[in-house]
Parts: sequence; C-alpha cells; structure tokens
Amino acid sequence: MVLNPDALLNAAEALATLAFALSGLLAAARKRLDVVGVIAVAGLAAFGGGTLRDVLLDRRPFYWVEHSDWVWALLALCVLAMLFLRARHLVVTARAMQWPDAVGLGLFSASGTQIALVYGMPPLIAVLMGCMTAICGGVLRDIVCNEIPSAFHDHRPYALCAFAGGWVAVAGVRFAWGEEATLLAATATATGLRALALWRDYELPPWRVTD
Amino acid sequence: MVLNPDALLNAAEALATLAFALSGLLAAARKRLDVVGVIAVAGLAAFGGGTLRDVLLDRRPFYWVEHSDWVWALLALCVLAMLFLRARHLVVTARAMQWPDAVGLGLFSASGTQIALVYGMPPLIAVLMGCMTAICGGVLRDIVCNEIPSAFHDHRPYALCAFAGGWVAVAGVRFAWGEEATLLAATATATGLRALALWRDYELPPWRVTD
Amino acid sequence: MVLNPDALLNAAEALATLAFALSGLLAAARKRLDVVGVIAVAGLAAFGGGTLRDVLLDRRPFYWVEHSDWVWALLALCVLAMLFLRARHLVVTARAMQWPDAVGLGLFSASGTQIALVYGMPPLIAVLMGCMTAICGGVLRDIVCNEIPSAFHDHRPYALCAFAGGWVAVAGVRFAWGEEATLLAATATATGLRALALWRDYELPPWRVTD
Repeated sequence: MVLNPDALLNAAEALATLAFALSGLLAAARKRLDVVGVIAVAGLAAFGGGTLRDVLLDRRPFYWVEHSDWVWALLALCVLAMLFLRARHLVVTARAMQWPDAVGLGLFSASGTQIALVYGMPPLIAVLMGCMTAICGGVLRDIVCNEIPSAFHDHRPYALCAFAGGWVAVAGVRFAWGEEATLLAATATATGLRALALWRDYELPPWRVTD
Repeated sequence: MVLNPDALLNAAEALATLAFALSGLLAAARKRLDVVGVIAVAGLAAFGGGTLRDVLLDRRPFYWVEHSDWVWALLALCVLAMLFLRARHLVVTARAMQWPDAVGLGLFSASGTQIALVYGMPPLIAVLMGCMTAICGGVLRDIVCNEIPSAFHDHRPYALCAFAGGWVAVAGVRFAWGEEATLLAATATATGLRALALWRDYELPPWRVTD
Repeated sequence: MVLNPDALLNAAEALATLAFALSGLLAAARKRLDVVGVIAVAGLAAFGGGTLRDVLLDRRPFYWVEHSDWVWALLALCVLAMLFLRARHLVVTARAMQWPDAVGLGLFSASGTQIALVYGMPPLIAVLMGCMTAICGGVLRDIVCNEIPSAFHDHRPYALCAFAGGWVAVAGVRFAWGEEATLLAATATATGLRALALWRDYELPPWRVTD
C-alpha cells in the first residue's frame, strides 16, 4: 500500500480541524448554548486562530472562505451533534479528542509559522503567529463562553509546545530543508512534546507571586 | 403623499441603528458602566457587526468613518440618556426597541449579504457574513459586559431569521431581481420571521445533552 | 547637559510601554495565569491598542513586527517577573506605575490621533482612534481576564483625558504647529489631566439610572 503524502496531510488537517471544532462544541454544550451558539463557538474554535493570523498578516482569502465546503461540514457536524450527542458521550469525546488536538497544535503552529515567514515576519514574530494560529481559536472559544482562556491558566504545556515547534519551522526555512520536511519536523516536535506532556502529566510551575 | 424609497430606507436604517445603540446603552446601564463605557458599548452594539464584516472583507471605509455625523449623534444620545433616562424607563425602552431591532436584524443581514456577494464571497459565506453584520454588534456588546452573548444562548430565533433572509438575498442576486427588490425581499423575510417569533414567543428546542 | 528630544521621546515611550505591559502582568498575577497567560496578557496590554488601531486603519507593519526586539524584552520581563516578583511587590508596583501609565495615556492617544489624521480620518474619528490606541490594550487585557474593562466602569477620568488630548492634536495639525510641538502639546494635555485626576482623586458622576 502506498501512502500519498498529500492525502495524509489532508487527513491530518481534517482530523485536527474536527478536534478543534469539537472542543468548541463541547464548551458550548457545557454552557447550554442554543444551536446558533454551538455553531458560532465550534466555528470560532476551528477557524478563529487562522483567521486572526490572516487578519494580522493582511492575508486573504481565509481558509473557510476558500473552502466553504468545510463550513457546510461544520454546520452538519453541529446539527448532528445536537441530535445525537448525550451527556454520557461528553467526557469520552473530550478524552478521545486530546490526540487529534495535539496533531492540530503541531500542524497549525508549524504551517502558521511558515506562512508568517513567507509574509516577511521576523523569526520571533513568525513563531508567535504560529502559536496564535494553533491556540487563538481556543482562546476566542473561551472568551465567548465567558471563561478565562484555558490555554492561559491551566498550567499544561500547550502553547509552549507550539513555540518549540515554531522554532523548528524557522530552522527548516533558514537551512532550506524543503517545505514538506520542515512542516513534518516542526509538527512532529510540537505534537510530540504535547503528547509527552499529556502522557507524563506535566505541569508548568506555578507563579509564586502569592507566597 | 408620495414616499421616496431612499428616504424610507434611510429612515429604517437610522431607526435600526438607534435600536442597536440603545441595546448597548441599556446593557451598559445594567452593568453600571461610566460614561466612557456607555459610549463604547453603545458604539460597539451599533457599529461592531458591520465593522467586523468589513475587517474580514478587507473593505474600507467603515460606515462610521464615512458618516462620522452618526458618531456625533451617538455621543449626544449617550450623554442625553445618562442625563434623562431613569430606571423606570429601562424596561419600556427595551420592549419598545424590539420592533426596530427586528428591522435592523433584517436590513443589516440583507445588506451585509449583498456586500459580501459583491466582494466575491461564496453564497454560504456571504449569508454568514450577513448574519455577522446583524448579530455581532450584540455579541461584542455582551462580551465587553462580561456576559455570554444572548444571541448564542437565549434560544430565541434571531440569527436564524437573519440566516433565512440572507438566502433570499442570495436568490435575489442569482436571479437578478435588482438591488432594491432583493434588499426589500431579504429584509422582509428576516424581519417578518423575527416578528413572528416575537409575536408567537417561539423558542428553539434545547440541546438534550444533559439528559 | 544637553537632552536630545528624540532620546527623550524614546525613553518616554519605553517607560510607557513598560507601564502598560506591567498592568497586564499584574492582572495576570491576580488571576493566577500561567507563563503563557502572563505573556499573552502583558503583550495584549502593551501592544493591543495600537494593533487594533492599525487593523482598523489597514496600516502595516505593526509596531511589534517592526520592533521585534521589544517582544524579546517583553518575554524577558515576564520571565523575570515570574521569578522575582512576590505578593508584597504587587501593590507597590501598581502604584508606582500610575505615573508612567499616565505618560503612556497621553503619548499613545496623541500619536494615535496623529497617525489616524495622516490616514485621512475625519477629526472625531481620529480622536477616537487615539483614545483606542491608549485604552484598548487595557480593555483587551480585562476581557481576556474575564472582567468588565476597568476603563469602562471605574468612573475615573482616563479615556476622557485621552479624548481632550486628541483634540489638541487635531488643533495642532489644523494650525500647523509642527509634528513635535503637536505631539508634545497633546501629550501634555492628556497626561496633565490624568495626573490632575489622580492627584485630586476625581470621579465621574454616576449614572442615576437606578434611582
């Protein structure tokens, strides 16, 4: 069996976007939003990070404008979830989505960094824009749900893994590894670190400001 | 008596913008914001949705930049409201504003969809941008007031009416009804559905996720 | 000793940006955010207002893209603060930062207004964009920290001082005082009013909506 790398990349991207959308869907369920809220929060979680990056870079068209089929898929997902998802599925779904979410963290931070470098950003800014691509969907999801963004206070290495992966992408561009190899190496770094953090249950040290 | 259609449209737009601004003003009053907060929240409610759409479309100038007289009017409205509005007026004002608010929902979703189509958006995206134009002012108002956006959780058909109206606008453009007729038909659809929902007190079905 | 005006301006700007970043850092400490949250909120407080203005004006590059050294400095500041800042320093830091914060309020509202005028905004809009430059960093900081923005409800003259300074900048451009003199006069007006308000402990009148 021969695996087409492009098909693999597309599958990883689809899976990761699904994981991001589901994180929004579950957050909306916890807050008992209605169908409009569910769609809005799931869409924000799935596409918000990339859209924010593109607004900052003044880059068009957005992913969801170019691929409006994905928005149809999102609408269908939300309606199906509201029809068939029950309370007993929520925890299972959240746990199952940790792994594709880690893939998305790596993939979107790597590709986000690459895109920002193409747009002439300096290395640090490109890496931060890669992190934004990966985490700001979740940040916007939490803001709309009236929570402090979990990426900012749960003391789990998440954005930091994306940050590390971003620097691998910068190295790949600097040393001309080629686009695919760079994407793969940066994604593997960020996703691998995140998987390690999940597996070993790492926590960032607390700020001892209240001692 | 002859009614000039343009004058009628301008009057509808002014009335609808006033309703949106007042929704912000009342939200600010409930949270006991100061004069700066009142102006910011009223302005966000009135102009936030169209501004978000224009940022996404990379469209300039914004409505409030081109018509800065309206911003003066908003400042005057806020100052007058702070001088003369009392607690006993709040409920009356909120109830009276339901109807011009429904006009705004229809008008802004219809015109927002038309604008997005002119900017080459695919139909679904154009309809969603029409919905954004109509509802995101209120969404931003609620986020700033530290509430979950009511458009996302009050289970009243609001964005869904805008969604239906948006598809009428798409049909009007596809079948070349002409700009005015399209705007009128789409606005009438969204506003009519909203008025029906208010009149019959419709509610969206709850998500049975917690059964 | 001869003071170079440019060096003085740069020093004022650095001090003011530091004050804004520290306001984010302290807000993040109060909410017990982790290192990612601290950096995000400090960065938003420092650069969010100018970035929002530039997105609205469609102006690039952003300050933090052009001067990515400042972002390195911000990262260093956050890490050092998390290592060395203790609870007993928080109140002292907040109080000490009031004065450079007032300088930032004046400087950023003055320069924000000037930039908006260069981009062809009408006077009122330019002044409001100057205010945005000065206050929206703090507004975004508070939204992310799940609070109603203090600039909107603490009843202290803050944005109003920026508003007054902005009109001085408009006058300076209209009557061709020259760029430096305009910046100085507008900054002095806004900063002076803010310092007066702090010194005399002024409060805006409450809205008597709940009588």
